[in-house]
Amino acid sequence: MIILGVDPGTAVTGYGVVRGDGTRPPILVECGVLRSSPRDPLPCRLHQLFDGIAELIERHRPAAMAIEGVFYARNVRTTVVLGHARGVVLLAGEQRGVSIHEFSPAEIKKSVAGRGAATKEQVQFMVTRLLRLKSPPEPADAADGVAAALTFLMGARVPRLHVVPGGRA
Amino acid sequence: MIILGVDPGTAVTGYGVVRGDGTRPPILVECGVLRSSPRDPLPCRLHQLFDGIAELIERHRPAAMAIEGVFYARNVRTTVVLGHARGVVLLAGEQRGVSIHEFSPAEIKKSVAGRGAATKEQVQFMVTRLLRLKSPPEPADAADGVAAALTFLMGARVPRLHVVPGGRA
Repeated sequence: MIILGVDPGTAVTGYGVVRGDGTRPPILVECGVLRSSPRDPLPCRLHQLFDGIAELIERHRPAAMAIEGVFYARNVRTTVVLGHARGVVLLAGEQRGVSIHEFSPAEIKKSVAGRGAATKEQVQFMVTRLLRLKSPPEPADAADGVAAALTFLMGARVPRLHVVPGGRA
Repeated sequence: MIILGVDPGTAVTGYGVVRGDGTRPPILVECGVLRSSPRDPLPCRLHQLFDGIAELIERHRPAAMAIEGVFYARNVRTTVVLGHARGVVLLAGEQRGVSIHEFSPAEIKKSVAGRGAATKEQVQFMVTRLLRLKSPPEPADAADGVAAALTFLMGARVPRLHVVPGGRA
């Protein structure tokens, strides 16, 4: 089962594609970041992000998308722009029939690093260990997308795994 | 020149399609609302909204989209969901090469009803008058989309009108 994990951001969206079957250790297929320039108009940035996620889905055909839930930034404007970005990521998955699962930042940290208040470094360390990598995923923001995918695979939502692959939960 | 005005909402999105050339009175081509059920999962609602806006663009081929800017609701969660909805509306326009123009709620009220603090009823009344309609647009939420389109046509952003139709401002 291939899972696409996404951590949407206003300028940088981290993603990780992980393969796992729940018995053997999961395997990292690909990870990276989708960047958009804050100098570009918002509609243009959303279009780039949407195309990037759509391309990943079409190339890897994930059975599910694990996406980090809304982080309420102190700056309301940042939170709103993040909402726009999440909107197009969810749309890209939904249009392509991918089962979508949201996890709060604390759920992801707890699942991967054992504590909802784990630091970014602790999450990176555990992602590296769980996937038996020689070094942490690069760039650093990619690790958050990978962590979301691992959270799904590690069964935080086991009952929701029983869906037709590619269908809706 | 055909303008699509959109007032995105979390459950109801009002729209208005208006034709005008800046000299003769503008003509209302179509108006209405796109509804989504709060009982449906958010990705499904975003998909419906996106398809609705895409269909309007493909049917009317507007030269520009006028969209109401972010209204910061008291409830942060509402504001965030509204961000998701605006994200897919902007994407639908951008993907189809429509020039996108944002106006704040106050700009729209001032442009249509003369005062940034005009009531919903005053906006409805003026929309009805400017378009020489016999009765206000129905349902009421449609009037906000129509008002956004009229704001564009009435030249609040005149310099931005000088774009290649269908191109980017």
